[in-house]
Amino acid sequence: MSREGLDVVVIGGGPAGYTAAIRAAQHDLRVLLVERADLGGTCLNRGCIPSKALIHCAKVWRTVQLAHQCGVKVDNPQLDWDAMQGWVTRVVQTLRRGLQTLLMHHGVAVTKGEASFVNVREILVETPTGSETVTASTIVVATGSRPLPLPYEEGAPVVTEEEALFLPQLPCELLIVGGGASGVELAWLFSTLGVKVTLVEMLPRLLPSMDEEIALGLQQQLERQGVTVRLATKVTRIATQNGRAAVHTETGEGWVADLVVLAVGRRANSENLAHLGIPLKPNGAVEVNEWQQTLVPSIFAIGDVTHGSGTAHGGMAEAERAVKGIVKFLAGEPLPPQAPDFVVPLCVYTEPQALKVGLTEQEAQERDLAIKVARFPWRASGAAMATGETDGFVKVIAEAKSMRVLGLHILGADAVNLSGEAAFIVAHGLTVEQATAIIRPHPSLSEGIGEALWALAGMPLHIAKRPERGRREWQNECSS
Amino acid sequence: MSREGLDVVVIGGGPAGYTAAIRAAQHDLRVLLVERADLGGTCLNRGCIPSKALIHCAKVWRTVQLAHQCGVKVDNPQLDWDAMQGWVTRVVQTLRRGLQTLLMHHGVAVTKGEASFVNVREILVETPTGSETVTASTIVVATGSRPLPLPYEEGAPVVTEEEALFLPQLPCELLIVGGGASGVELAWLFSTLGVKVTLVEMLPRLLPSMDEEIALGLQQQLERQGVTVRLATKVTRIATQNGRAAVHTETGEGWVADLVVLAVGRRANSENLAHLGIPLKPNGAVEVNEWQQTLVPSIFAIGDVTHGSGTAHGGMAEAERAVKGIVKFLAGEPLPPQAPDFVVPLCVYTEPQALKVGLTEQEAQERDLAIKVARFPWRASGAAMATGETDGFVKVIAEAKSMRVLGLHILGADAVNLSGEAAFIVAHGLTVEQATAIIRPHPSLSEGIGEALWALAGMPLHIAKRPERGRREWQNECSS
Repeated sequence: MSREGLDVVVIGGGPAGYTAAIRAAQHDLRVLLVERADLGGTCLNRGCIPSKALIHCAKVWRTVQLAHQCGVKVDNPQLDWDAMQGWVTRVVQTLRRGLQTLLMHHGVAVTKGEASFVNVREILVETPTGSETVTASTIVVATGSRPLPLPYEEGAPVVTEEEALFLPQLPCELLIVGGGASGVELAWLFSTLGVKVTLVEMLPRLLPSMDEEIALGLQQQLERQGVTVRLATKVTRIATQNGRAAVHTETGEGWVADLVVLAVGRRANSENLAHLGIPLKPNGAVEVNEWQQTLVPSIFAIGDVTHGSGTAHGGMAEAERAVKGIVKFLAGEPLPPQAPDFVVPLCVYTEPQALKVGLTEQEAQERDLAIKVARFPWRASGAAMATGETDGFVKVIAEAKSMRVLGLHILGADAVNLSGEAAFIVAHGLTVEQATAIIRPHPSLSEGIGEALWALAGMPLHIAKRPERGRREWQNECSS
Repeated sequence: MSREGLDVVVIGGGPAGYTAAIRAAQHDLRVLLVERADLGGTCLNRGCIPSKALIHCAKVWRTVQLAHQCGVKVDNPQLDWDAMQGWVTRVVQTLRRGLQTLLMHHGVAVTKGEASFVNVREILVETPTGSETVTASTIVVATGSRPLPLPYEEGAPVVTEEEALFLPQLPCELLIVGGGASGVELAWLFSTLGVKVTLVEMLPRLLPSMDEEIALGLQQQLERQGVTVRLATKVTRIATQNGRAAVHTETGEGWVADLVVLAVGRRANSENLAHLGIPLKPNGAVEVNEWQQTLVPSIFAIGDVTHGSGTAHGGMAEAERAVKGIVKFLAGEPLPPQAPDFVVPLCVYTEPQALKVGLTEQEAQERDLAIKVARFPWRASGAAMATGETDGFVKVIAEAKSMRVLGLHILGADAVNLSGEAAFIVAHGLTVEQATAIIRPHPSLSEGIGEALWALAGMPLHIAKRPERGRREWQNECSS
């Protein structure tokens, strides 16, 4: 069987792929989405969503354990890992069903099967019941990524960051290799659930993409709750020892754990493209231009396949761009150069959460920018005080001369939900003065952003600042 | 004793007053703040902060009761009202101490005493140990408001909305008169804690300042959790009946409750100004211009005293304006006309929370604006699904022709923390296209704002929309 007359075939039904498919359909294009496994990709099935659902369960566990502080007494709190897995399953299944309905409503045809390129316009789709060839004017590759492996001795209890979310039971001692967002979230999650966790990172710091101060704050939080963190420590060998995993490192330090989780990064699923002559980066990621177009003009690539490891929302934004490009391409219009002006927030869904929007202090320094930095600690916030979630701070970075906000970084409860506000400030290039000009509710966490901005302007409201000029002598006299 | 040489005397140490005092000090002005009771005013001592702290305790109680859904089992959950009051006390005391330190650090002199005007430049401050007269070039009146009373039979168990936060014990049955933000929050709070609550409102709807659809959604939530809501029902008499309160209404319906809470609005504390010839509105509120200046050019008024009942953050924004005005005034500069361009968010801290930013649909209609409206339900959000908090929706209102966003309204968990994002969109007059152009993290509640905006643009991503044009026939053929 062969299918023709398609405008777009999207390969991969993760967040990038399904966004591209829906957007293309909304532009009246004929779209086929090919997905080899479950709709929703890594994010919905093995990544962000199950991890956030589990993290929610861990937060409930934590709330229950601290409830007495707020006048709620309970006896005998017990953690039911199977029931937590049930919560995750319900969340994932509901969203997956929703996604299926969505694609149908938007007029996207969906085929379950493994896609491979016959040539730049023809794709072979192998389904459980047979195979078909489809041709389309454009193809969007959204095949995602998979966890990078590390070599380990056969039989050693080792799982990937994805498998770690679906363990049959909680281990007693867990060792996580890799201190990126994924490893840090897993460390927080399992440690909160009472597992003894060791987190080993090869680099001299955790969360290399985040602002260093934020990463350090989160590391201290992990350590406070009992996680052993080892930085600048390269794992050299994972062996089996009486059914457990023995982890050896370059520094000589070693551990034995019930289970090892590998969270050492991801690799683009780009094998599909090798024989088309589309160039790949060393990590396997597909090279694209600012429209997400590959070297073959009719083939676009979006999401993790273009960077190896990224965010769902980054991939979704790339999908928007790709579809705009495809519409032009199909109309025979050129794709003019455009600025890659994405401000992609990075989030770590621990407690406190970590958020990065715009440049970190280190990135600003690398660019030799003259900057000003200010912070606001949550312990000075009425909103944070009322809920007792006072760990962390807001950090704002502005270009010293123009006072344009370059970066906003938050360590704190609910930081992720402040990302929209932060993104407007950074992406619109607002000055500190412009960014302080809105009225933020009192009490609210949004005030924390306002306070950090005011602090940068030298006029903090809810944090003390010794006046450089001012009236201290007079005040002393007066208040006596 | 007499004190001279002051640039500003601020009367009232609530959020408006202390903001004015700190800002004035930051402008190198000599500032005296006079507060008759506790620093922090109604908001910190008897309003927003204790109410939010108690609401947090109620949310913990609710989390514990639903914890089994997330794999956390507990036996015998018990509510300890005294311990909840202890939580509130600790939060309030910590913030009050912080405020005291802040004022000191910023160089603001603070006197505890009752202030009254001798004349437009002279103020008599009566303290427990004596009295003094202070003169200042400018005076900021930030005396706040107090709960409006309703007549009731002597001895009937009736408290104000402020006293309701500090009850010695939880009643079994509570009747709340007044369905504004305060009454609705109290209804949610006590009902969540297991009290049988009746909420009686004179107007035909709850929350008259919020978008009607949001108010209705919150009403339904209250009713689902067992609150009896009576609208268009005027309370005529509150009598004593065997130590309980018998509440009579114009509609003939009546209730007997252990306690009645009056949340029927507030009255400006403006008596102080009567003999200065400063005009007051019928509700006692002080009339001011757009610089918060009264008819007496050296006297400014901010916060609840200028509107009878308002928000802390509104008062704080007025303080900013007043201090800018005072700086000009003291320099002999004119105060030029300026637009009262405040976008003051309104929040209701229930579960789900309610947020208003910009125009409601009703306000847009009253102004005869041609508008477009779209909604996004939280049940379609991955972030909301992961935490199970799927009640409510985002509603966005744009001017039909320009597609500028006029209003953003949210009913949903954590709505308040999305206010900054909403405020930037509305206050900056962004179009729907501009407002969709930032990248919002997936999963996050911020996406809900993005989805509602996309829906308004006719391109929803995570909600189904039958394509008006489109490929349904083709799709049907294709997906078979």
